[in-house]
Order: sequence, then structure tokens, then C-alpha cells
Amino acid sequence: MMKKSLFLTALSLAILTGCQNVGSQALQIEKQGSFTVGGSYVTHKGTFKQENFIAPEGQRAYGDFAYVKYQTPTNAKKYPLVFQHGGAQSSRTWESTVDGREGFDTLFLRKGYSTYLVDQPRSGKSNLSTKAITPDTPWASNPMYADKTFWILSRMGHYDSHNQPVANAQFPAGEAAYQAFQQAWTIGSGPLDNDLNADVLTQLVDQTKGAILVTHSMGGTIGWRTALRTDNVKAIVAWEPGGTPFIFPENEMPKITKARFEALSGAAMGVPMNEFLKLTKIPIVLYYGDYIQVGSDNVGEDKWGTELAMAKQFVATINKHGGDATLVHLPEIGIKGNSHFLMGEKNNQQLADLMADWLKQKELDK
Amino acid sequence: MMKKSLFLTALSLAILTGCQNVGSQALQIEKQGSFTVGGSYVTHKGTFKQENFIAPEGQRAYGDFAYVKYQTPTNAKKYPLVFQHGGAQSSRTWESTVDGREGFDTLFLRKGYSTYLVDQPRSGKSNLSTKAITPDTPWASNPMYADKTFWILSRMGHYDSHNQPVANAQFPAGEAAYQAFQQAWTIGSGPLDNDLNADVLTQLVDQTKGAILVTHSMGGTIGWRTALRTDNVKAIVAWEPGGTPFIFPENEMPKITKARFEALSGAAMGVPMNEFLKLTKIPIVLYYGDYIQVGSDNVGEDKWGTELAMAKQFVATINKHGGDATLVHLPEIGIKGNSHFLMGEKNNQQLADLMADWLKQKELDK
Repeated sequence: MMKKSLFLTALSLAILTGCQNVGSQALQIEKQGSFTVGGSYVTHKGTFKQENFIAPEGQRAYGDFAYVKYQTPTNAKKYPLVFQHGGAQSSRTWESTVDGREGFDTLFLRKGYSTYLVDQPRSGKSNLSTKAITPDTPWASNPMYADKTFWILSRMGHYDSHNQPVANAQFPAGEAAYQAFQQAWTIGSGPLDNDLNADVLTQLVDQTKGAILVTHSMGGTIGWRTALRTDNVKAIVAWEPGGTPFIFPENEMPKITKARFEALSGAAMGVPMNEFLKLTKIPIVLYYGDYIQVGSDNVGEDKWGTELAMAKQFVATINKHGGDATLVHLPEIGIKGNSHFLMGEKNNQQLADLMADWLKQKELDK
Repeated sequence: MMKKSLFLTALSLAILTGCQNVGSQALQIEKQGSFTVGGSYVTHKGTFKQENFIAPEGQRAYGDFAYVKYQTPTNAKKYPLVFQHGGAQSSRTWESTVDGREGFDTLFLRKGYSTYLVDQPRSGKSNLSTKAITPDTPWASNPMYADKTFWILSRMGHYDSHNQPVANAQFPAGEAAYQAFQQAWTIGSGPLDNDLNADVLTQLVDQTKGAILVTHSMGGTIGWRTALRTDNVKAIVAWEPGGTPFIFPENEMPKITKARFEALSGAAMGVPMNEFLKLTKIPIVLYYGDYIQVGSDNVGEDKWGTELAMAKQFVATINKHGGDATLVHLPEIGIKGNSHFLMGEKNNQQLADLMADWLKQKELDK
């Protein structure tokens, strides 16, 4: 098989040719966002047990919902347009054209219509299915019986029931919010390759000629690796980085704090010092939420305890070599109850303001 | 396995509780859209032949790119925010919260930052991979060697080479546009189930209390089926419906025009007359592009010839029973060179205006 890399993209083409047909005036958007609609779950027989927290027993697999992206312009017409894509496509069909011009989504917003763009069930951002795997439907690892695994590893509640949220929980209560959380996961269609992810993110950052990376969880290592690949990363804001290796000088590797389930322990990878020093050239901030404690009987609280211990060594090592890294453990500044998905919780505006203040402090808000 | 359907969704919760924290003023968006970045392809050995147009021989499989959704507010700050999600997530992470409030994407647009939201390679809307399947990576049907299959079935060019676009092609020329087209496909994670798709679309339409459906290609049948399920479908605009059954009264089934490759022939399904009559209660318009001809040596032109013949019978049957269906074959009104993906081609603004005029004519633009 011949393998060839392509570096031109629709956007770079659009930039080169200046073929953005932006209307004479800015879009006036009253509201925008995304949600999932429909959906069901199947429950695996057996009883969920913390001691075997990734086993399917007693867990729900969610699926068969649609992902919907919506926008409403000011003074919208009475009836919105609901866009249904064709086979093996996604709502991408209705977005920008292949040469980077505005697609029907934006064109009809300009005409005053609200738009709802669907990724149909089992596709795109809604690619979870409750359809059991059979020899003639060899789909990815569906159904994914893991609702309690996700719940406890994310520190939203305790393992014996998702009806026991943590005290002062910032995660919204109720079945609908729980379902929306479960319906935000996606099934991969290839092995996780964080160097590939970083290579591609680097191409995007280079196209922007300078950008601030905002990462979450396992995306943390993708952010660090991207900063090693390009000077166009001007800062990194990492929300609970972990689950993938932090980066250290190969001759200054950190102490690993072991989790009770060892596979959940924080991890590190070594790089040559001259590579590591690139992380000392940009401001970096890491935010961690509440209920993080090595030794906790909640595997999520224990797991994130080992990640936090790793993150503290990461920050100390960057600063020891002249860098500008900050770690904010939110409970220590009075912000309680946040889980691993803090950017979407009840106080997300407060957290956005906190991040905006940091960017201002670093003069990245000009 | 116990199966349970859930009808509450994040949006309906948001509606019920009114918990949209829309800012005091509308967002001012200078530009918005999506594109893919990065990506590579692998080429299968052998030579592509029209006679075996779905075989991998000589075809490229694209993959390992990221999908990126971007927005730029007016007077944007110098550095955009590039958002990288965590493991098994997607850019959904940064969009609306699980209880329907604004997420970091919109919150930071309000603060004046441009945003780029990534679906990392092999996930979400960018779930194509060039990684070959091995026993220990049992991913979906990747790599998907089908670039020429897609190209000719979409009537963009001729089978012997994607470098031979049709005359007057509205599809943008060049490798970058070709790549962007190939990188818009997605791998499903469950069997195609158009009744499931219609059930979920019905829930969305019912939440809107009235909507205009816009469908493409195989989405056509999902649109017809949704209109049979709810009175909240106020009109249907179908762009080249086909590839899945049209709907007819079970006692008035149409004549099937056979394609040279019989599996590509237009299809029909019968429903009781009282069900079919629901399609006569709303205005419906179907648009078809250029290069559609039964018997053409281009399998795509031949295939869409049989679909167009089916569509004409569909429209005639609706109108015979007192409905309001219109079929617009674009070349007949002087709009030449459009392929199957016409909504994203060079003249997409002209097509959007055409659709907007039809909506106005039907007084659906109030």
C-alpha cells in the first residue's frame, strides 16, 4: 500500500484563495448549541461492582440517539429548517463547502431561518448503538456497557448507584442530564494514536498562525505534544489532564503514585531536555476539580489523586527550568463539587471567567 | 437484556425549565463553518474498473484527519482558542451543557475569542481511518477503499479517473476539494435503520412544534417516514432523494426502471393509502442535478436516471391524490453541472435562493 500525506485542506485553500463568501454583515445569533435527541439503553445482566468497575455486569449501554447542532438567528422565522444528511455522511454535508465557502447552514441563518443539523443515530457524533454485535453486523465495540464506569471515573457520584451524586455536586441532577452525559461518548474507528492526533492538531495550529490550546483529560498529552511540534502554540489551558502520559525530561522522570487499580495510575513519558524546554516557553495552566484523593474507595477519586500528584511534579519541573506553569486545584480557591467534566457543569460560567482572567493576566486577550 | 426508551432529552429539559443562559445580547458572528485538517490516504493495489465499481482495486481510502468546527466573532482577539476533547469524546464536550446551557464554545465567543472545535482523528465526524484492520484492532469497515466509487456514483466525473470532471462541473476543481469531499464520509457504528432514524427525527421535529425538513440522498426516505409519523412536519425539501425507498400506496406501486447494475435501481415501499395520504397534506419539493441518464455508461448517471424516474412517479402519485409535490430537474431551468452533492457546489448560493423562493411561495418564510 502506498501511503501519501496531504497538507492542503479546504480551509488552507480558502485562505489562499480568499474564497470566503461572508455576507456583508455579521450573523446575529440569538442562541446556538448542541444536544442529543431520542436514545435508549440496554442493561446487562448481573450487578455492578466497584472491584470490577469496567465489567459490563449491571451496566447500561446507551445508544440510538441523534446528535443535533442548532442555531437561532435574531428575529427567526416561525419554522426552523431541520437538515437530514444522506448515507454515510453527517451534518458536515450542510456546513462549509469543500472549497471553504458558506454552506446551507450559514446561508439559511442569513436568510432568517433557525437551523437544526442532525447526525443520525449510529453515525458522526452520535455513533453509539445499542444494537448487539452479531457476525453479520461487525460494528465497533457496541453496545458499550459502561455508564457506571464513566460515572465513577468522572467523580460524579459513587459506584453503587448513579443516584448518589457527590455532596455539593456541580453536575446537574436528574435522569435527563445523566442520559445527556452518557450520550456524549463516541466509539472510535481506529486505535488511539496521540502522535497522530498531535500531528493533525499541529497542522491546525499552524494554519491559525498562533493559537491557545484548550485540552481536556486524555487530550492533555495531545496538547503537550503539539507544543513540542510547533511554536504557534501560544499557551495551553488544560482541564484535568490525565489518562495519558505527562511529559518530562528523560533524565528527570517523576515518582509514580500508584492507584489502587494500578492501570489507573498517572503516567509519564520522557523526552530529550531540549524538547522538554519548549514547554517552558509558553504560559500553561492546569485546572482540577473536587473529590480527588489517593486511597479513596471511589476508583475515580483515587485515580485522579495519582494524576494530580503527577501534574504537580509536571508543573514543578517546568517552573524549575524557567517556565510559567500554574496548577489550580479548584477546591483550594473555594470552588467545590466539580467532577472531571467541569467545563459543562452548573458553574461553567464561573470557570470560563476564571480561565478568561488567566488569559488576560498573560496578555493573551488582546 | 431489558430495553427502555427515554423521551426526556437535554433540550426538552432546557425548554421545560427555561434554563438557557443566553447572553443579554445576540452573538455577532463574522464567520463560521467546518473543514477537515490533515489526512492521508492509502491506495489499494490493482486497477479500478467500472464493471466492478465497488471493488477496492485501484481505489484510495482516506482517513486520519480531524474534523474542525470554527466560529469567529466580530472584532475577534488575535489568538483563537483551539479545543481538544478528551478520550472517547468529541467536540460535543465544549458545546452545550448536559442541561442545555451554553458551553465553553459559545461562552468564549461572547468573550471575543474565535473558537476551533476539533473531533480528533478516528472519532466523531472524522471517524475514517487508514489503519488496516487486524485481529487486535477490530474496527469498523476501515480502510474504506472507495474514492472512485463515491466520485462516479455522485456524478462528479468519469470512472477512469477523478481527474476527468464532467463538463461544466459545479463541483470545485482540484485535489484539495477532492480530498475534502472524501473526508466528509463517516463510518457507521451500527446497521442502517431508517425507521429508527425516522423515529428519532420525529422526536426532534415534535420538540420544535413544527419544522421544515431538508433531506439529502438516502435521507429522503427518512423524511417521508417522518412525515407519516408527525403532523409537525410542515414541508419537505428533498435534494436528490434516492438510494432508499420512495413511499407509495401499497395498491399503487410504481414501475421500477432497472439500472444496468440492478442493485442501483430506484426502490419503492408500499404503505396503506391512509398513511400515504399524509404526504398530500404538506408542500414537497424535490431537486435533481445534472448528468442523470438511464443507460449512461457512467454508473452514477445511470443509477440516478432510475431514481429520477421513480421520483417522477412519486410526485405524480402525490398530486393525483390532491397533494402539492414539485420536482425540479435543474438542467431544465438552465442550472447545469450539479452533481449529487449539489448543496455544497460552486452555485450553492443560487440553489439556496431557489429553495428560499419556494419556501416564500408556500408562505413558510413568515
